[in-house]
Amino acid sequence: MPKLILVRHGQSQWNLENRFTGWWDVDLTEKGVAEAVAAGHLLREKAVLPTFAFTSLQTRAIRTLHLALEAAGRLWIPEVKDWRLNERHYGGLTGLDKAETAAKHGDDQVKIWRRSFDIPPPELEAASEYDLASDPRYAGIAIPNTESLKLTIERVLPYWESTILPVLARGETVIIAAHGNSLRALAKHLSAISDADITDLEIPTGQPIIYDFDETMQPRERYYLKDA
Amino acid sequence: MPKLILVRHGQSQWNLENRFTGWWDVDLTEKGVAEAVAAGHLLREKAVLPTFAFTSLQTRAIRTLHLALEAAGRLWIPEVKDWRLNERHYGGLTGLDKAETAAKHGDDQVKIWRRSFDIPPPELEAASEYDLASDPRYAGIAIPNTESLKLTIERVLPYWESTILPVLARGETVIIAAHGNSLRALAKHLSAISDADITDLEIPTGQPIIYDFDETMQPRERYYLKDA
Repeated sequence: MPKLILVRHGQSQWNLENRFTGWWDVDLTEKGVAEAVAAGHLLREKAVLPTFAFTSLQTRAIRTLHLALEAAGRLWIPEVKDWRLNERHYGGLTGLDKAETAAKHGDDQVKIWRRSFDIPPPELEAASEYDLASDPRYAGIAIPNTESLKLTIERVLPYWESTILPVLARGETVIIAAHGNSLRALAKHLSAISDADITDLEIPTGQPIIYDFDETMQPRERYYLKDA
Repeated sequence: MPKLILVRHGQSQWNLENRFTGWWDVDLTEKGVAEAVAAGHLLREKAVLPTFAFTSLQTRAIRTLHLALEAAGRLWIPEVKDWRLNERHYGGLTGLDKAETAAKHGDDQVKIWRRSFDIPPPELEAASEYDLASDPRYAGIAIPNTESLKLTIERVLPYWESTILPVLARGETVIIAAHGNSLRALAKHLSAISDADITDLEIPTGQPIIYDFDETMQPRERYYLKDA
């Protein structure tokens, strides 16, 4: 039966510093590396061995994938990287830490941006040091200036339908190493979580989440691999 | 103009121990890791930045690719892994060190197997601990039992023509992280080296070799990136 493994990247430097990261390319911390390796060991221990991999264009997700696959003895499986699995773009909040954001915009407003389903943060200014227009990895891509979770879903789900689901449907064990919000987008769809509830779903770093599919490609309940 | 970068994997444990490796999946040594990282730094320093990657199904080549791309800031480029870029299969010599091979087969015979173009070593016995029939990465592949350089070329070149060359021809900077003999196969073709001379061509570990192509997709002379 097809099986889907979701892994959120291990701790990044800006997770640690509590800064909005989004599309900015921040690397893993040492703890993040260890989380990724542990995820791979768990895959091996539980004999849930991926046969096909997807990840984003962001270093922290790609490295998480590689470290986990290496630890699982599966570095050789095909892998596809796509910007549609990138983290939600946090617009003008990119780079700000919690205190800076609260000082600039007020706690209530920040809570709205963090937790609302469809209200995006202010746009990233073109003159921002976090502007990605010159990053060659996004050449030819209409880089968003900001995204709500709703907007994130609107690019993740078509990619899921067109590209990931067909791979899964041919019986592969698919691993997706990605980000809090791109994985939330998938979990919302697969577990039929409401707009109101989805922003409360926490996806822990480096903790493989499994979806088993039946023969009609309907997902059964999700579970953490550690509990399997 | 299209550009091709060939990188032989960094030192492996069995390179260090002077054992025939072939298709056996031996990992990099610490020195091999350092060589791969240095290759990536050189790519960045010389601004020869790959846009598309190919590698084999073997850990030492895949890790070399990942380490080099990470050091070059290019971990996000597409990558394709294929068994046709694997090392030459050394048959019954797999796992033997220099002294063991000489004791078993004699120095002259070993020199023939190492250096002849078309005489393969004896076949790997099915009961060998190095038999790969149960390795899932080769499921569906007719795993060779032994290969001469000629036989290696006969699976590398069709892959080059069908899959790598079209990517190069659309103007990409292609990196191939692979093995002494799969890269020799390519160099023989691209530099029109004779059957007699090719086995003398040494491809150093972790040292990027560049081929620049002209608009008719003819390769010009090859050079080491360090000398560029």
